[in-house]
Amino acid sequence: MRLHHVGIAVEDLEEAKARYLLLGFSPLAEGEVAAQGVRVAMLRGEGETLLELLAPLGPDTPVGRFLERRGPGLHHLAFATGQIEEDLARLKAEGAKLIDEVPRPGFGGHRVAFLHPAFGLGVLWELVEA
Amino acid sequence: MRLHHVGIAVEDLEEAKARYLLLGFSPLAEGEVAAQGVRVAMLRGEGETLLELLAPLGPDTPVGRFLERRGPGLHHLAFATGQIEEDLARLKAEGAKLIDEVPRPGFGGHRVAFLHPAFGLGVLWELVEA
Repeated sequence: MRLHHVGIAVEDLEEAKARYLLLGFSPLAEGEVAAQGVRVAMLRGEGETLLELLAPLGPDTPVGRFLERRGPGLHHLAFATGQIEEDLARLKAEGAKLIDEVPRPGFGGHRVAFLHPAFGLGVLWELVEA
Repeated sequence: MRLHHVGIAVEDLEEAKARYLLLGFSPLAEGEVAAQGVRVAMLRGEGETLLELLAPLGPDTPVGRFLERRGPGLHHLAFATGQIEEDLARLKAEGAKLIDEVPRPGFGGHRVAFLHPAFGLGVLWELVEA
């Protein structure tokens, strides 16, 4: 697999976009994932790995609770796979606890699935069909 | 710039390497950065962005204190630049507080410099000359 994107929890999407612009990253796409209560800005730099800025639509959302608990910062790693069901089954057989037993629609129309961070040794892992 | 690597704080390097092996990442290089009190394993997947696993050599080290305070997990983002002094000066002029005013030797012989995470909105940024 390859690293598809790094998810970053932010308080204010515009402020964060401006900050990453200083590193040469620029907006690739932006929109809401209503089911997750989040507004997303995907940023692209000179390389293939994207940055995904995540701003909560309210306090009682996964990212809202993350900000309340830990403050803004690094949130998850997403890995690209061409065979998401097979990889989920394989990782489950290795002992992973899955947050999403079946892939669900993520940002940009990709199918995604999250794994419980205990399996990622404190890192929230996402698989992205891409 | 492009994302050069993601730094991940771990308790046990061997355990963490085995976990990322399940995602198709494999060891690229390993060694100690004594000045930082850390043992590093650089992992490569199918893409260009690397994962840098960081295990502390003792509790009273930057990564040891991070683990004590936050537990294992995502630690920093490193961005590749061909002009590290110029970028540091530019970011400082934009208001960044620099942890390293001048680049210092990092893992693998690259010159590196860290910025205070307040400027990265809760994310510890590293510039890597690469």
